[in-house]
Amino acid sequence: MMARRKFWGWGKVGEGFTDEEMKPFEADYAAVFGVDGFKARPFPTVDEIEIAPPRLAPPASLAPVCTDDKWERLVHTFGRSFHEQVRVMDRDFAGAPDLVARPRDEGDVAALLDWCAEAGAAAIPFGGGSSVVGGVHPDVGGGFKAAVSIDMGAMDQVLEIDRASRAARIQAGVYGPHLEDQLRPHGLTLRYYPQSFEYSTLGGWIATRGAGHYATMLTHIDDMTESVRAVTPAGVHDSFRLPGSGAGPSPDRLFLGSEGALGIITEAWMRLQDRPGFRAGHAVEFARFMDGVEAVRAIAQAGLYPANLRLLDHNEVRWSGAGDGSAAVLVLGFESADHALDAWMARALECCRDHGGRLPEQAGGGGGSAAARWRDAFIRGGHMREMLTARAIIRETFETAITWDRFDDFHREVAGAAERALEEATGRPGIVACRFTHVYPDGPAPYFTFIGLGEQGRLSAQYDLVKNAVSDAIIEAGGTITHHHAVGRDHMPWYERQRSEIFAAALRGAKAALDPAGIMNPGVLLPAR
Amino acid sequence: MMARRKFWGWGKVGEGFTDEEMKPFEADYAAVFGVDGFKARPFPTVDEIEIAPPRLAPPASLAPVCTDDKWERLVHTFGRSFHEQVRVMDRDFAGAPDLVARPRDEGDVAALLDWCAEAGAAAIPFGGGSSVVGGVHPDVGGGFKAAVSIDMGAMDQVLEIDRASRAARIQAGVYGPHLEDQLRPHGLTLRYYPQSFEYSTLGGWIATRGAGHYATMLTHIDDMTESVRAVTPAGVHDSFRLPGSGAGPSPDRLFLGSEGALGIITEAWMRLQDRPGFRAGHAVEFARFMDGVEAVRAIAQAGLYPANLRLLDHNEVRWSGAGDGSAAVLVLGFESADHALDAWMARALECCRDHGGRLPEQAGGGGGSAAARWRDAFIRGGHMREMLTARAIIRETFETAITWDRFDDFHREVAGAAERALEEATGRPGIVACRFTHVYPDGPAPYFTFIGLGEQGRLSAQYDLVKNAVSDAIIEAGGTITHHHAVGRDHMPWYERQRSEIFAAALRGAKAALDPAGIMNPGVLLPAR
Repeated sequence: MMARRKFWGWGKVGEGFTDEEMKPFEADYAAVFGVDGFKARPFPTVDEIEIAPPRLAPPASLAPVCTDDKWERLVHTFGRSFHEQVRVMDRDFAGAPDLVARPRDEGDVAALLDWCAEAGAAAIPFGGGSSVVGGVHPDVGGGFKAAVSIDMGAMDQVLEIDRASRAARIQAGVYGPHLEDQLRPHGLTLRYYPQSFEYSTLGGWIATRGAGHYATMLTHIDDMTESVRAVTPAGVHDSFRLPGSGAGPSPDRLFLGSEGALGIITEAWMRLQDRPGFRAGHAVEFARFMDGVEAVRAIAQAGLYPANLRLLDHNEVRWSGAGDGSAAVLVLGFESADHALDAWMARALECCRDHGGRLPEQAGGGGGSAAARWRDAFIRGGHMREMLTARAIIRETFETAITWDRFDDFHREVAGAAERALEEATGRPGIVACRFTHVYPDGPAPYFTFIGLGEQGRLSAQYDLVKNAVSDAIIEAGGTITHHHAVGRDHMPWYERQRSEIFAAALRGAKAALDPAGIMNPGVLLPAR
Repeated sequence: MMARRKFWGWGKVGEGFTDEEMKPFEADYAAVFGVDGFKARPFPTVDEIEIAPPRLAPPASLAPVCTDDKWERLVHTFGRSFHEQVRVMDRDFAGAPDLVARPRDEGDVAALLDWCAEAGAAAIPFGGGSSVVGGVHPDVGGGFKAAVSIDMGAMDQVLEIDRASRAARIQAGVYGPHLEDQLRPHGLTLRYYPQSFEYSTLGGWIATRGAGHYATMLTHIDDMTESVRAVTPAGVHDSFRLPGSGAGPSPDRLFLGSEGALGIITEAWMRLQDRPGFRAGHAVEFARFMDGVEAVRAIAQAGLYPANLRLLDHNEVRWSGAGDGSAAVLVLGFESADHALDAWMARALECCRDHGGRLPEQAGGGGGSAAARWRDAFIRGGHMREMLTARAIIRETFETAITWDRFDDFHREVAGAAERALEEATGRPGIVACRFTHVYPDGPAPYFTFIGLGEQGRLSAQYDLVKNAVSDAIIEAGGTITHHHAVGRDHMPWYERQRSEIFAAALRGAKAALDPAGIMNPGVLLPAR
C-alpha cells in the first residue's frame, strides 16, 4: 500500500527529518539565538482535528471521482505556506474542502465544473499542493455554498512524444519524478526542477508561472510551454502547437499564471531537452557579495547562458550548509547534450576573476563540494519547515526580481526592512540571507531567507510583521511581489499595487467571459464574488 | 525640406528603384514567363485621386495635432499589402481616414481617444504604415461616423537609458534608424531589424509581435520587451519594469500582439544588446533542401543560438539573387559583444557537414558573398513591390511556423497548394520559394515567396486565389496563420480558425473592459461592432 500524503507537512508519511536528525540543526539555532534548546510541538493526529461535515454531496454520475474521506479533506485543506503550517500545528483546519474530486479525464473535469457552477460551489484546482502563497486553500469568502478541491493527480500520463521537435503532450496532473520517468526512455527531459519537484505538477507549474532548475534562459515554465489545453466553465480551450507565432496576443500566456482562476489546465505540449552528457561546474568565492553581483551581471550579459549561476551571500552560504560563511559563493555550471563546454566555462571564469572571484576548489560535475552541499540542503528543504515551525523557529523565504541598476539600493532596503521587522517581531536580531535563484541579462531574481526565534501562539503575527514589511519594501522599490512563487491569496494586496487598474479590468473581463459564475479558485488574482 | 512619405509605395518620394534599374529584373522575369517585356502602369498623382471630404472636425483643443491635408490622408489610407498596392494603382482610396492626428504626448493620445469615443469615430493607430495584412487601413464597417488615423511618429524619443541593465525607455513612435541613432552613443542596440526597419516603429513592432534580425532566441519583439505603457479608452496601463516575474498572467503579453485593438502603446522599456564586436559567418551549400533542414534542426537543438540561421531553398537562392539556384544555401552567422566565436562556429559547421553541407567560400563577417547578396536584396525588398505590381508581376510572401515533426508534409502541402493555385490563377506555372526566417528548437518559421505573371484588372482576384489556398493549407496542416506579419484585417478568417472560441471570448471580455465603445482599430482581432 502506498504511503499517504501527510496533511501536516511536506511529502508522504514516513518522509522527512527525524527528531534525531534535527539535533545538529537545533544546536546550531540554539547557539545563534542564545537559548538552551527547543521544545517541539507534536504534529496533529487525524483524530485531534475537527472539521465540519461536507455541505454537499456529488451527483451519482460524479460520485466515483469524489470523496469526503477526512484524511483526504485534510490533505487538501492547505498548501505549504507559513501561515498554513501554523494552522496545522494549531489543529485549525477550518476551510477544509467539503469534497475532494479526482477527475480521470477531461470529461470528468468539465462535469465537475458544471456541477460546481450549478451547486454554487467554489472549485479549487489542486496539483501537488505545494503552494506557499495560499493558492489551494479554499478560503473563498461567504459567497459559496461549499468548496470542492479538484486534485488532478489521476491525469498523469505523457500522451505523445515528438522526438524530432523534442516535445511531448503531457497531462497536467503529473508530478515531477513521474514525468521524468516517462521521458527518460526517450532520452528526453523537461529539465525543470523547482524545489517542490517531488510534490508539484505540470499543471501547477504552468498555472503559477513557476521557475525551475536553470538559472538563465530556461527559467520560467512559460518558455517551455508550446501549447496549453484547459477546461473552463465556458468550455474547452486549446491552442495550436507552435514553435513561435505572432497571431494576436498569445493565448498560452493568458493561462500561464492564471492560478486556477480561469479554468483548469488539463494538458500541455511541452518543449523538452536532450539529456545532458557534458557538464562543467565551479564554485567561485567572492570576499564581497557585491563583487559577486558584478561578476554575475557580466556573465548574464555575455550570452553564455549557464545552467547554474546561483550567487549565495555569506549568510546564505552559512545557513544553507554550503560553507562557513566567510565568503559569498557563486555556483556556476554549464551543461549540454551537444558539445564540450570549455570555451563557455573559460569565459565565465574570466568574468569572475575580473571581479575578484577565487576558485577555492577545482572540481568538475556539480560545481565542487560547496555546490553539492548546497544542493543537498535545497532538495531536503521542503521537509525542514514543518520541523522548524514545530520548534517556533521562523525560517521563511521571499523572492522577487529587479533590474540591475536598482539592485544595490533594492537589496539594502529590502534586507534592511527584513532585519528591522525581524527584530521588532521577535525581540532579538534575526538572520537575513540572499541568493540569486535566476539571473537575466537585465536583472537578477533575488531570493531572501529570514530566520528568527518565534514564540508559540504568536508565530503567525510575528511572521506577518516581517512579511508585510518586506512586501511593502519590495513594491515600493519597484520589484515584483513574486518571481516564481505566484500570487495566491497571500500576495493579493501587493499584487494589486503592482498590477495596473487597466490590466485588472482586462482580467476581470476575461474571467467574466470564461467563468461567469466566478467559481474558479475565488479570491485568487481577483477578489472573490 | 524633408521628403514626404509616398502614398503609392514604400518609403519617401525619390527613394526606390528607377525604371532604368528595373530593366535587368524585367529581363529576368520576361525570360521565365516567356513574354517580351512589361508595361508599367504609372503611379498615381495626388490630383488623380478623389477622396470624400472629412466627416468630422477636431475640437479646438485637438486642432493643433490634427490635419485633413489630402496627401497626409492618402499616406495614412493604406499599409503595404498586395491588395492595398493594387488599390493604389487603381486610384481607389475609398476608406481614407477623415483626419490624421499626430499626438505630441500621452495627454494628446488620451484626449484623441476620448474625443473619438464621444464623436463615434474609429481610432486607427498608425506606426510606420508597413502592415502587409491590412492592419492600418480604416475599413471599419458601417458602425462609425468617421475614422481618425493616429500617427505616433512625433513621439520618437529615447527617454531614459539604463546602461547597467542594458535597457531603455523609448517612445513608441520611433522609427528603426532613429532609434538606433539614439542608442549608438551609449554603445547599445536593440538589434532588431525587420525588413521594414526603416519605416516601422517600436510601437508597431510590439503591437504586431514582430520579429527581427536574429534567427534564434531573440526572434520576436516579445522577449525584448521589459514593460509596456499604453493608453486605452479606459485609462493608462503601465507595468512594472522587471527582468522576470511570476505575478499572474503577464500584462505585457496582453498588449504584445494587441494590434491597436485594446489601446495605443505609448512607450516601452526595451532590453538592449551591447554592440557586437565579434562576428563569424559562413554560407553553407546543400544539394538537397531537406538535408539543410536537418542541419538547421541540429544546430537549433544544440544550444548554440546563432544570430543568423537562414536556410534558403534553391528557388529562394535564385530569386533573391543570392546565387544561381543550383543548391540550397544556409546563411550561418554568430555574433557577440563579449567573446570570440570559434567554438560556436566550429560545432555549427560540424552539424552542417553531418548533413552534407559544403562550404563553397570561406569568408568572415557577413557570411560570404552569397549572404551579402541576399542581404542587399532583402534590404531593398520593400521598394520592389510597387515596381512589380505596376508591371502586373505578382511577387508576394506568406509566412508561418510549424514543429519539426510536421515540417516535411507541411512544406509539401503548402508549397503544392501555392503552385497549384498560382497556375490556376495565372494560367501558367509560377515560382514558389521557401526560406527559414527564424528557427526554434522545436520548429522553423518557413517564409514562402510566390511569383506569378498576373493581369492588370485581375491582380487582386488572382492574388486572392493563391492567398486563400495557401492560408487554408497552412491552417489545415496546423501552422500559424502568421509568425510575424500579424493578423490585421486580411488574416481574420484564418485567425478565427486558429484561435479557440474560449480565447476569443476572453479577448472580447478584455476589450469590452478597455475599449467599451469599440473604437480601437475595429475589425482587427475581433469583428467591428
